Amino acid sequence: MKSPELQILSLNAFSGGGASLAPDVAALVERRKKSFGAGSVLFYDEPLKIVRAEGAYLHASDGRAYLDFYNNVPTVGHCHPKVVEAVRRQVGEFNIHSRYLFDVAHDYAEKLLATFPASLSNLVLTCTGSESNDLALRLAKRMSGGTGFVVTKTAYHGNTATVTEVSPSSYKHGKPPSHVRTVPPPDPAIFGNDMAQGFADAVAAAITGMEADGIKFAGLLVDTIFSSDGVYADPPGFLKAAIEVTHAAGGLFIADEVQPGFGRTGTGMWGFARHGIEPDIVTMGKPMGNGYPIAGVVTRPEILSAFCGDFGYFNTFAASPLATAAALAVLEAIEEDGLIANAAHVGRHLMARLKRLQAKAPITAVRGAGLYLGVEFGTEDGPAPAIAKGLINGLRYRGILIGAAGQYGNVLKIRPPLCITIAHADMLADAMEELLG
Amino acid sequence: MKSPELQILSLNAFSGGGASLAPDVAALVERRKKSFGAGSVLFYDEPLKIVRAEGAYLHASDGRAYLDFYNNVPTVGHCHPKVVEAVRRQVGEFNIHSRYLFDVAHDYAEKLLATFPASLSNLVLTCTGSESNDLALRLAKRMSGGTGFVVTKTAYHGNTATVTEVSPSSYKHGKPPSHVRTVPPPDPAIFGNDMAQGFADAVAAAITGMEADGIKFAGLLVDTIFSSDGVYADPPGFLKAAIEVTHAAGGLFIADEVQPGFGRTGTGMWGFARHGIEPDIVTMGKPMGNGYPIAGVVTRPEILSAFCGDFGYFNTFAASPLATAAALAVLEAIEEDGLIANAAHVGRHLMARLKRLQAKAPITAVRGAGLYLGVEFGTEDGPAPAIAKGLINGLRYRGILIGAAGQYGNVLKIRPPLCITIAHADMLADAMEELLG
Repeated sequence: MKSPELQILSLNAFSGGGASLAPDVAALVERRKKSFGAGSVLFYDEPLKIVRAEGAYLHASDGRAYLDFYNNVPTVGHCHPKVVEAVRRQVGEFNIHSRYLFDVAHDYAEKLLATFPASLSNLVLTCTGSESNDLALRLAKRMSGGTGFVVTKTAYHGNTATVTEVSPSSYKHGKPPSHVRTVPPPDPAIFGNDMAQGFADAVAAAITGMEADGIKFAGLLVDTIFSSDGVYADPPGFLKAAIEVTHAAGGLFIADEVQPGFGRTGTGMWGFARHGIEPDIVTMGKPMGNGYPIAGVVTRPEILSAFCGDFGYFNTFAASPLATAAALAVLEAIEEDGLIANAAHVGRHLMARLKRLQAKAPITAVRGAGLYLGVEFGTEDGPAPAIAKGLINGLRYRGILIGAAGQYGNVLKIRPPLCITIAHADMLADAMEELLG
Repeated sequence: MKSPELQILSLNAFSGGGASLAPDVAALVERRKKSFGAGSVLFYDEPLKIVRAEGAYLHASDGRAYLDFYNNVPTVGHCHPKVVEAVRRQVGEFNIHSRYLFDVAHDYAEKLLATFPASLSNLVLTCTGSESNDLALRLAKRMSGGTGFVVTKTAYHGNTATVTEVSPSSYKHGKPPSHVRTVPPPDPAIFGNDMAQGFADAVAAAITGMEADGIKFAGLLVDTIFSSDGVYADPPGFLKAAIEVTHAAGGLFIADEVQPGFGRTGTGMWGFARHGIEPDIVTMGKPMGNGYPIAGVVTRPEILSAFCGDFGYFNTFAASPLATAAALAVLEAIEEDGLIANAAHVGRHLMARLKRLQAKAPITAVRGAGLYLGVEFGTEDGPAPAIAKGLINGLRYRGILIGAAGQYGNVLKIRPPLCITIAHADMLADAMEELLG
């Protein structure tokens, strides 16, 4: 049996055969294989060549506009005028590392930190979510004195050597080293109705297991909406008990907000807020610069100080004027465009439509919050990734982009730019209804 | 005794006391301490607030223009019109991850790969030099079956957990783990006149040492101009013998071109070319996007394939239209502006002036190639970091920005944008002459 990640990749990946490609696409695929080799992963049996983007739409070389329900990076909309303008202005003024002073990094840092509980008052800027999680693991190890981490079964937290170890979904074979222990995703099908207790017990058992093997616990690391596990948001507050277990065992709680952060869940800026908890470390990335590479770690000053006493840490491209100007424009656009309220409003409507669809389709669950929804497919034979794969390609030919997640790749992952409208949500629901009919 | 990195940092770092700061600078320093906490490192006793940049100059809030002999990222010049125009155009068209197709990533990849030996035909794009070195270590481990690396004594290769282990200069106390062994920098004061043999013998001894401890050798990783060790370029070709030792022991040679790459040495695009060698893996970063975060790993297809058989690797922000458009403009600017020839020409002139200065100042060596030069200070009492520190601050007040490197922080590190002129080089040499007089 193939590993989960391999299933997810193959579910949506270009296989190199099958569909006959348009000449411009075929030519690019050949160039791609030559330069990028085994590192190349393309979406779709018939890959898309993008030529332009705006708002909720990507425009392809086939002359069609594709409604984007996949991309969580351009969170305020593709080519948002405010972000475009900020980048165009700053790139012509200056762009330099942060060992010099300049205003915009501090305007940004203060505006960002104001969205966190008061205890989380220090920010380290990095370039990618991977760099943020890599640093977060080091902070947690230093503060706890431990080395062991608990993560979920199909977790993905990034691509550095160290972060891959806490990302079971990246293993094509084999499994994470012994200092990494996994717990099941917070699925009612596994834990029943008392999710808080069930998930906390699983975390406690994982800690007990690693300590029995002589590995001191350092922390619990979860994506607060469990994206790659298949999108789990409910019931609000269920994470609280697991955090208490983590703290009682001397570990730190790292909230990975790379995917749920910046308003996507529709209930505030951060996914952890939904659970009424205060993380020790928060990491963020993807939507932070609407595509400009910027990411960050927010933590308590004493956690950062302890680490900085041991190691020099400097990140050349991070906290630059250009990165922070782009990111500041994103924060302003989220506010000015009312995107958190929009995520809640459109997400609620889409959730209701998907739940109605559930009554007449092989859908085993509709989950999520705001504009991060998961639609799980299954039949009496179990998880049904073939249905998800059929939908992904079927929706592509109907002009809608989407992807899959979960251990079996049977969960349709809905995470559009936050600027989509009720009409866009209806276009997705209508198309799914037709395809599943 | 403080560790090398601590010395280097304190040599040029803002100490928080002493100079009375301009009100705008003092206010920013306070905001900075609050938001960035222990993670903040600022240059100079009296930090600079930057408001604008162009060509070889940074303009500060004190109304002065500072000639930049420090920054190796804006390699084609601050706010180069070609790069500014490329970013301004692409950011308004589209910016998305590379699981879709688009032209510019391939136009870039092919132009970049054409600068490498034919065997090095696959490119993985990342966002930072740290991510590139992190991936390179994984590639080398997979291909060699080993885990042990040899690096130089004061090496710096980046900031991830794994890359910090091969960066002795990042340790404020303690030292790298046992799978990392160090060799002295290629200094004639250590190895005498037969540098090739001496350095190769040191690498061989390090490999023998690790294998005696049961650690299988994976590779030799060096910055091909040994930047943080204090800048060592000569004699051309000396690295060849060490690479032969590496290959004979079953290891891979990783050339870290993050600092010397993209024409800085004046003898071609890459530092390794100076040594007539063909690396197994090449990493690059800093100047690649003239400040836009883009970095990369170039290797042989079979090395990349082996790794990709084990792990999924995807980098969301890398290989994007915006990143590759910026990087393509950099390659074009290097060509069109004749920057490699300029690095050779201006570098030769500056080297000659510095060597003349050596006769009348406490300079123990002038080293380097092209526009990466090192001026080492010492007296009969040994290395003289105080002279380097005095010069760094003295030059700042004369309107010239510069930094230090080396185990003792006694090497003035000269690495300006490659667009500087003979007149600029004379300004630096004149100012140094005055200050040392």
